[in-house]
Amino acid sequence: MVSTETKPEQGWRRRLHIIIYEADTPAGKAFDVALLWAIFLSIAVVMLESVADIQAQYGSWLSLLEWTFTAVFTVEYLARVITVRHPFHYIFSFFGLVDLLALLPTYIGLILVGGQYLMVIRTLRLLRVFRIFKLGRYIGEGHALMAALRASSPKIVVFLMAVMSMVTILGTLMYLVEGGVNGFTSIPRSIYWAIVTLTTVGYGDIAPKTVLGQSISSLIMILGYAIIALPTGMVTAELTQQVHERQTEGPCESCHRHSHAQDSLYCRFCGHKFSGSRLQ
Amino acid sequence: MVSTETKPEQGWRRRLHIIIYEADTPAGKAFDVALLWAIFLSIAVVMLESVADIQAQYGSWLSLLEWTFTAVFTVEYLARVITVRHPFHYIFSFFGLVDLLALLPTYIGLILVGGQYLMVIRTLRLLRVFRIFKLGRYIGEGHALMAALRASSPKIVVFLMAVMSMVTILGTLMYLVEGGVNGFTSIPRSIYWAIVTLTTVGYGDIAPKTVLGQSISSLIMILGYAIIALPTGMVTAELTQQVHERQTEGPCESCHRHSHAQDSLYCRFCGHKFSGSRLQ
Amino acid sequence: MVSTETKPEQGWRRRLHIIIYEADTPAGKAFDVALLWAIFLSIAVVMLESVADIQAQYGSWLSLLEWTFTAVFTVEYLARVITVRHPFHYIFSFFGLVDLLALLPTYIGLILVGGQYLMVIRTLRLLRVFRIFKLGRYIGEGHALMAALRASSPKIVVFLMAVMSMVTILGTLMYLVEGGVNGFTSIPRSIYWAIVTLTTVGYGDIAPKTVLGQSISSLIMILGYAIIALPTGMVTAELTQQVHERQTEGPCESCHRHSHAQDSLYCRFCGHKFSGSRLQ
Amino acid sequence: MVSTETKPEQGWRRRLHIIIYEADTPAGKAFDVALLWAIFLSIAVVMLESVADIQAQYGSWLSLLEWTFTAVFTVEYLARVITVRHPFHYIFSFFGLVDLLALLPTYIGLILVGGQYLMVIRTLRLLRVFRIFKLGRYIGEGHALMAALRASSPKIVVFLMAVMSMVTILGTLMYLVEGGVNGFTSIPRSIYWAIVTLTTVGYGDIAPKTVLGQSISSLIMILGYAIIALPTGMVTAELTQQVHERQTEGPCESCHRHSHAQDSLYCRFCGHKFSGSRLQ
Repeated sequence: MVSTETKPEQGWRRRLHIIIYEADTPAGKAFDVALLWAIFLSIAVVMLESVADIQAQYGSWLSLLEWTFTAVFTVEYLARVITVRHPFHYIFSFFGLVDLLALLPTYIGLILVGGQYLMVIRTLRLLRVFRIFKLGRYIGEGHALMAALRASSPKIVVFLMAVMSMVTILGTLMYLVEGGVNGFTSIPRSIYWAIVTLTTVGYGDIAPKTVLGQSISSLIMILGYAIIALPTGMVTAELTQQVHERQTEGPCESCHRHSHAQDSLYCRFCGHKFSGSRLQ
Repeated sequence: MVSTETKPEQGWRRRLHIIIYEADTPAGKAFDVALLWAIFLSIAVVMLESVADIQAQYGSWLSLLEWTFTAVFTVEYLARVITVRHPFHYIFSFFGLVDLLALLPTYIGLILVGGQYLMVIRTLRLLRVFRIFKLGRYIGEGHALMAALRASSPKIVVFLMAVMSMVTILGTLMYLVEGGVNGFTSIPRSIYWAIVTLTTVGYGDIAPKTVLGQSISSLIMILGYAIIALPTGMVTAELTQQVHERQTEGPCESCHRHSHAQDSLYCRFCGHKFSGSRLQ
Repeated sequence: MVSTETKPEQGWRRRLHIIIYEADTPAGKAFDVALLWAIFLSIAVVMLESVADIQAQYGSWLSLLEWTFTAVFTVEYLARVITVRHPFHYIFSFFGLVDLLALLPTYIGLILVGGQYLMVIRTLRLLRVFRIFKLGRYIGEGHALMAALRASSPKIVVFLMAVMSMVTILGTLMYLVEGGVNGFTSIPRSIYWAIVTLTTVGYGDIAPKTVLGQSISSLIMILGYAIIALPTGMVTAELTQQVHERQTEGPCESCHRHSHAQDSLYCRFCGHKFSGSRLQ
Repeated sequence: MVSTETKPEQGWRRRLHIIIYEADTPAGKAFDVALLWAIFLSIAVVMLESVADIQAQYGSWLSLLEWTFTAVFTVEYLARVITVRHPFHYIFSFFGLVDLLALLPTYIGLILVGGQYLMVIRTLRLLRVFRIFKLGRYIGEGHALMAALRASSPKIVVFLMAVMSMVTILGTLMYLVEGGVNGFTSIPRSIYWAIVTLTTVGYGDIAPKTVLGQSISSLIMILGYAIIALPTGMVTAELTQQVHERQTEGPCESCHRHSHAQDSLYCRFCGHKFSGSRLQ
């Protein structure tokens, strides 16, 4: 991820760069693990601050901790900027922006009430965990998932457009049938109800009360049953294909026929013995 | 979609036709984009009108807007009718009927309270979006989904009949077990509850209170767990097959027919022996 | 379904048999359609009777209708018994038992309050619809579904045992954590809650209120997310295989190789031209 | 599972070992069945004890039964320890620990209120059912399921991390939008709500009330719709592969290795040319 030319040429900036940006040296790894813990703890502090009882009792301590973490992250951010050869490259990179966004909320919180809660953006910084623990394999899996989603995306777009049209029409219908006295006080609210029902979430904060409304709801639910099958089916079909392909190897060198399993030693069509180079 | 002979032979009607019905000229595209926005906004107006607070404050403005949009759509509809060579072809086509249905609710609203909400039928007019942005690819995907649904439909019919029988019997059972005091006031209402439970929507507006009722509910839920697998499985199986077929080899050099498996040696339609070059 | 030897040899019993048991003659078809409507209407009567308002107003009419339908079905049952060559064969067959069970509830209702609601068993009689409309294709699909379920059943048994153990342990845990004041008044009730949660039904009649309880619930839900994948996956895998096999034909007569698509005209391995007899 | 060397060499301990640890003799089988019933009944007793009404009326009887079962299980545990050749092997084996854990709660209940409910750990002892009824086949299926889960596990880890990040950010967002007055009293509670919504459980104990909150919720639900497809897809893809492999041909006559595709001509492990007789 970090190519060598991002390193300053020499001196303390180069040494600091290796600690901050790389995870191959003991110091580098220790730095990254400490950073992860700091991120985790600072998110926990934000969460605890939002609990009224805890805030009332330990509010000043939590506030102190929050500022400490913010100070640490500010120093870290500045260190990252000055120890990289092309600071603007870093600042406008994905991780650079996330690092900055993770700092701002505490300062915003001084001006805007509730602003400090935006600090949960720090959660995104946890993505660094992939680098430290060399979770490359997981990144591969993540790519596989994204590929399956992407291959299914035209189907999913069509599907979502159909769902949106459906909930608009069904929501309006229920607004007319049930009316405000039964909780369907407006069309947007009825559309919200239709989404809650079609996705089988079913809070029950709004529920049909008339016989006709319950009949229409029943139809929507049965419909939702059939409909939930579609996105699942699309993604599954793509992933099945991926698994299938993962299990097969390239063509035989002798007869050029395809579809050989990974652990085959001989071509199953012409009996040619596979060379070692073909094996992974 | 629009074959040339629908165009009037010449004059302003021909020029207007090109603007209204086609999206290949700048004017035609601008017209369609403006139309889409008008549809979106008019749907938004209907939704806002249904919100009591907004209606109380801006009711007359919204009413004005609604009538303005309806006037615009009425003019557009008439323009469509007079600029097409065979007006009745258009009037009774799918889009012609949708265009008409999208107009009527405002007028119906004069006589019938609530009638104007039927204007959400305008949502269907948004399907025109496919033509403007040349979303032919999505139409193809839509067809693929429909094909998967159609191939699964005999299974789905059997499945729905089994589900309907099941909820009728389970609903009645729960009506007997729980009775009116616990909310199961009639068999149709109990069947509604059974559908809410089996589809895992679970509003909670009606919930079993007796021990026996809760035991039966638990069984229904576990059952629903197994049952939800079926429609998903059916559709997935069809979609998997589609994806699988998409992966197959190119056409035969002799008869140019497609869908050959990768390990085929002879064309399965004309018996032509595949040359080595066909292999990847 | 009905082999000829079930028919009496001659006379009015033979003629009546053809009308009652068969659907190939106009009279036989009319009889079956009338019967289906009678079953539908009698189920509707039972449902309407359970609605307090309707019962209060039209109770005596509904009661009259119910007895009329029961009289009709009793006559039909006796006719079926006397017009079949081996009455006991019919009486103890699946349809014979269903026909009898569909009669009894009205008579039981005389003695036992609520007994008449068991009449919904008549729903099962609707299965006759398959015979009338020659829905043999649907029966085939039903068999395919059952086959997929049966092939998955050892996996499903293991799965259900694991789920039952899980909900027992999780339910008890939540009973200890939340306690009676938050609605978890007993272990069986907590197990009911665990099932409601794991199946994603989520009535909300019982919901965790303590922080620890909500944390455990969150884990259960995430778990349920992963778990719901299993039965779906099992059934889907079987159905995918079925679809795959449906697409393939028997072996080539010349080289005896398998895996030919249904519309192949030539063997894709040896180029042998398939004879017509191989085609369906 | 129990190899012969666990048996003491001779005497009553050897005879007792055969009864307690094995299920091949009539006495051994009777012992195991009686044990299963005792476990079932003791779990039922724990459950009944937790129901306030039953506890009030039959509390002393249930307590007596509980101590009786515990006494029986204590004796059984000691018998297991003394009739095995290497007691520590047994004590620290999976089943040994479960057997001990199933005893302790009753004794803990003397000191700690509610401790006796931990007895539901006895549920795990029911796993012995597999040995008695020789349900080896089910163990095989269990392994197949575990294998599918394991093969999908990197994907599932990535998926769960993404879900956790998503609910943290969405939960905080809703805390800011809805605030304490609408039930979103703290960030952890809002995260709990986000999990309840994303998994489509939807208790409804907390539900958005503002228009903005309901809009965001709708997005989360539609998202959850797409997301629920992923774990299902992953597991299904693996299971489909398993079913696919199960369908493959018999072993090679030369090297006796399995898993050959139906259209193979040569063994893919030893290069042996398959004879025609191997073809179906």
